[in-house]
Amino acid sequence: MKLATVRIDGGTSAAVEVDGALALLPFADVGEWLRAGSPDVSRPDGGARLPLEEADFAPLVTAPGKIVCVGLNYREHILEMGRELPLHPTLFAKFSDALIGANDAIVLPPGSEAVDWEAELAVVIGSRVSRATEGEAAAAIAGFTVANDISARDFQRRTTEWLQGKTFDATTPLGPFLLTADESGSAPGLEISCTVDGVTKQKADTADLVFGPVELVRYISAVTTLNPGDVILTGTPGGVGDGLNPKEFLSDGSVVTTSIAGIGECRNACILG
Amino acid sequence: MKLATVRIDGGTSAAVEVDGALALLPFADVGEWLRAGSPDVSRPDGGARLPLEEADFAPLVTAPGKIVCVGLNYREHILEMGRELPLHPTLFAKFSDALIGANDAIVLPPGSEAVDWEAELAVVIGSRVSRATEGEAAAAIAGFTVANDISARDFQRRTTEWLQGKTFDATTPLGPFLLTADESGSAPGLEISCTVDGVTKQKADTADLVFGPVELVRYISAVTTLNPGDVILTGTPGGVGDGLNPKEFLSDGSVVTTSIAGIGECRNACILG
Repeated sequence: MKLATVRIDGGTSAAVEVDGALALLPFADVGEWLRAGSPDVSRPDGGARLPLEEADFAPLVTAPGKIVCVGLNYREHILEMGRELPLHPTLFAKFSDALIGANDAIVLPPGSEAVDWEAELAVVIGSRVSRATEGEAAAAIAGFTVANDISARDFQRRTTEWLQGKTFDATTPLGPFLLTADESGSAPGLEISCTVDGVTKQKADTADLVFGPVELVRYISAVTTLNPGDVILTGTPGGVGDGLNPKEFLSDGSVVTTSIAGIGECRNACILG
Repeated sequence: MKLATVRIDGGTSAAVEVDGALALLPFADVGEWLRAGSPDVSRPDGGARLPLEEADFAPLVTAPGKIVCVGLNYREHILEMGRELPLHPTLFAKFSDALIGANDAIVLPPGSEAVDWEAELAVVIGSRVSRATEGEAAAAIAGFTVANDISARDFQRRTTEWLQGKTFDATTPLGPFLLTADESGSAPGLEISCTVDGVTKQKADTADLVFGPVELVRYISAVTTLNPGDVILTGTPGGVGDGLNPKEFLSDGSVVTTSIAGIGECRNACILG
């Protein structure tokens, strides 16, 4: 099952994909559906249908209570950089004002000369979980979506702590679809890619994560309670612009396409902030 | 004017200090009062009064949308460590589940052997502000409160990013009072101190901040929109347990008292998590 959050009538609505269209649901967004206990919506009867091509996607969860991000988490990329595999996940946060919909503009942070892409598999939490066992962690995963952890490298490196380069308003696409875990499993191996202006920059398999979705939920829940609608960005593979020689960054008009096979695609044009 | 958030009748209520008692206000917490535009509550008539000594303080803002924390921000402490003064503030985040009330127990993070204290002046935001000028930043400050950024040093240092050592559930006292900025000014110079089991560990003046409250609001608002009820923890002075020789950390039964003259005092006992 695939769900989305779309803008409609000046607000937003959760929706479920049925027969190539979106059936609107009586929840303001996928987060509200999750907090209501994820009631069965697989066979909606009646109600408005929206052709997919007319959908104006909002961030899949419009205001997650927590967005936990992971750094340095693709095995092949870590090893090719000559680094040791980490013992613990590197965790940092992002605020929900950073989120944009799957086709919204990325607002380039004023003052940054180094705005970079980071295609990521995102975990969406479906139930409250604290100090989870592995089984509880797996059961708490509602499903997966697509994100791009757009990063202002110059701000990220002003100090040791990355937050200020990671949480500029309106920079992080999240969506368009939640692929529910009953279809994906809790450790999906899917092709993830990022193109910039049609040129492929990143391509990897989400099975290559050092810390997979279940382990991340388990680990994070030992620190902080995770709630329905919370989001974990699981890290990005090699191929970011900062790692190229010469480095490449985004500029006004750049188009970033972030795809995960079987889940969906975000396509976001950059505009000056 | 001083406001608080107290637990009452299974919920919480904002309150204002009047004649040595707390007059309850029709807002669930100080955050809700701020989001309502901080209406005048200086002369509440009627309504319930609660003697101060009976108050059960909740976190001053029960669920801030954003908690932005600052590292390395007391001039004297930085210079005595032989470091250069920083060009930019070091920013990281904390989730609202970390917050506790002024007299609640600090739940020691399971698995940590290095739980440390960090007395801090906290800024509470009163109005929405983005890319603020200095004047707009000053006007956006509702007032100040007391916080202790209790830190699990071993988790904090597992990776370069501090989040996992900083956001354990139920570790960060915030309160008891908001001292409004019309009384404190926007850059208060107040004695801040932390004692552990009655022994003074930290004592400094909040005027010694490298990046003061107004500059922090201005700087942070250039990255992310700040909203009423958001909180900025401005950093801690010297004297943390990790800097002592030998190092000292908190344990079951330790009592941490965090005070800022003219604002108030948090007194929190540690319990095993």
